[in-house]
Amino acid sequence: MAKSINTKFVRKLRPTFSIATYVEGIKSGKVNVLSQAITLLESSKFEDHQIADAIVEQCLSNSLPSIRIGITGVPGVGKSTFIESIGNFLSNQGHKVAVLAIDPSSQNSGGSILGDKTRMESLVQQENVFIRPSPSKGALGGVAKATRESIVLCEAAGYDVVLIETVGVGQSEIAVRSMVDFFLLLMLAGAGDELQGIKRGIMEMADAVVITKAEDENLKFAKNAVREYKNALNLFPASKSEFKPQVTHCSALTNSNIDKVWDIIESYKNHTTINGFFEENRKQQAKFWLKERIRELLIEDFENNNKIKVEEQIIEKQVLKGVLSPFKGADLLMKKYKS
Amino acid sequence: MAKSINTKFVRKLRPTFSIATYVEGIKSGKVNVLSQAITLLESSKFEDHQIADAIVEQCLSNSLPSIRIGITGVPGVGKSTFIESIGNFLSNQGHKVAVLAIDPSSQNSGGSILGDKTRMESLVQQENVFIRPSPSKGALGGVAKATRESIVLCEAAGYDVVLIETVGVGQSEIAVRSMVDFFLLLMLAGAGDELQGIKRGIMEMADAVVITKAEDENLKFAKNAVREYKNALNLFPASKSEFKPQVTHCSALTNSNIDKVWDIIESYKNHTTINGFFEENRKQQAKFWLKERIRELLIEDFENNNKIKVEEQIIEKQVLKGVLSPFKGADLLMKKYKS
Repeated sequence: MAKSINTKFVRKLRPTFSIATYVEGIKSGKVNVLSQAITLLESSKFEDHQIADAIVEQCLSNSLPSIRIGITGVPGVGKSTFIESIGNFLSNQGHKVAVLAIDPSSQNSGGSILGDKTRMESLVQQENVFIRPSPSKGALGGVAKATRESIVLCEAAGYDVVLIETVGVGQSEIAVRSMVDFFLLLMLAGAGDELQGIKRGIMEMADAVVITKAEDENLKFAKNAVREYKNALNLFPASKSEFKPQVTHCSALTNSNIDKVWDIIESYKNHTTINGFFEENRKQQAKFWLKERIRELLIEDFENNNKIKVEEQIIEKQVLKGVLSPFKGADLLMKKYKS
Repeated sequence: MAKSINTKFVRKLRPTFSIATYVEGIKSGKVNVLSQAITLLESSKFEDHQIADAIVEQCLSNSLPSIRIGITGVPGVGKSTFIESIGNFLSNQGHKVAVLAIDPSSQNSGGSILGDKTRMESLVQQENVFIRPSPSKGALGGVAKATRESIVLCEAAGYDVVLIETVGVGQSEIAVRSMVDFFLLLMLAGAGDELQGIKRGIMEMADAVVITKAEDENLKFAKNAVREYKNALNLFPASKSEFKPQVTHCSALTNSNIDKVWDIIESYKNHTTINGFFEENRKQQAKFWLKERIRELLIEDFENNNKIKVEEQIIEKQVLKGVLSPFKGADLLMKKYKS
């Protein structure tokens, strides 16, 4: 009950913050201000977006050197415990760590994506750690925009390591891949059925594969899995980063080998800073999101056009039946749209 | 000289064909009419497109049961000789085989993509084989449209096996993957440097990996490679088709194991016909191209808009510099576009 009153209080308080207050608060690392600004980013209200956009623009130039790490894996692989373990490790090393999540497919509370903060009990107590639960459901485009802009705000607030969690089953991986520097795939030992949940193409996007739950009697299976994945990844084409994807195992339960995972990430950062890929990749990502967002806005405008709604359904049916070519169908719809 | 006169003659002759004559000619399997209709598809002239579209629409319902096979691999892997070998094999079995190519990146003659018909000397002599060299350069969207519609015309003309060749280095694979039933990746034995040319993600799209040039002293390396790829593909997530990707080797030089490659393709067709994926996939592909084409037309319209050309460059520069967020940049451009 107290919680719901608090929320209301925060929501009412929001409009009284000026943009300058938001920016000032974020830049001085105030967690509550950062948190409220992200709520504005995730809001579906037009006015909230106006304010949020202004805040983001003023925080853009304030970013310190940072690393953005995408973390994916099927439900059950142990993403939350892994994040808790590496989050604590990094915080103890003096890093400021922000944990975000992207899960556009979640219909309700979902659960696997930071829905349950209590799973990260020790992490939420760390002063240098900012955890943001999954935003409410929505189309991937909107969720991706909110997440990408949340990164900007977190970095402006002094978080130098940003972890972005996602589930390895949908389109969201491609979105996350396009907003992080390093992409980490968590896997269980005993390849086979567990893998069926991972979408095709995701493995080839990984900079590192980490076999989780490598403890006790599981350790030897984990070691086998490491060897197998190393062999498999050897057959993969090289990444543009010229960094050879690494494979290792760890245990978030015993905190073993977590430092090794971080070593891999640091060696990636060194490698790609020297060869220029790190900066170039961020530029290409910004360009990608510019183009992507234009595309989204164009399609949104098209789909919200009432003139074509009925016609679109008729045409789609004919195309599926094979009596109208998709290209002719698209032409017909465009003519209607532009008329 | 004689050749250039011939070309002129054909070009002049074209407009005198009526749409009915084109459709009639294609449906009765006349190679010269089919060929000219495809030239219309590839033309950049508006009037040609009008005619071509009408032809395609009338050929849509005339398709016999067919299989569309995408073939990719880096230059040097032996695509042309492989296609010649399997083309001859299929033709001798009574199939009518059409060979198309898609290569949007080719700046000039390119060479590797059927540019040089003489490489397929024995195949061009087969009566049941239709070979169409790579269309002239152009944006992927246009080239993909022309290729997809060429498939319709070839099938209407009675070709029941359509092979589509592409190079394993660009975006064209994704386009080809979205217009074929079966996707074949050719690879050389001795993984390593040769693989660097294959783009990430392509291996996971393959229904079969075939190690080429498995003859003489190469055979043992090819057998090793088959084993390695089998192990690697075992770690891959399952495809929606529920068909386990197969690995084999062959020699186009000695024509050995070509029948085995065809067996794999036939078993795929049987498997996916029974589980319904074959038809469902074609429907989804049609839907994909409808949406994709609408997207392309929307972006084309946006990019051809003179109002925003200068502004777009300015905004892109600011986004790359990091002083403007990509999302704000996209908003600004859209406002200008819609005004």
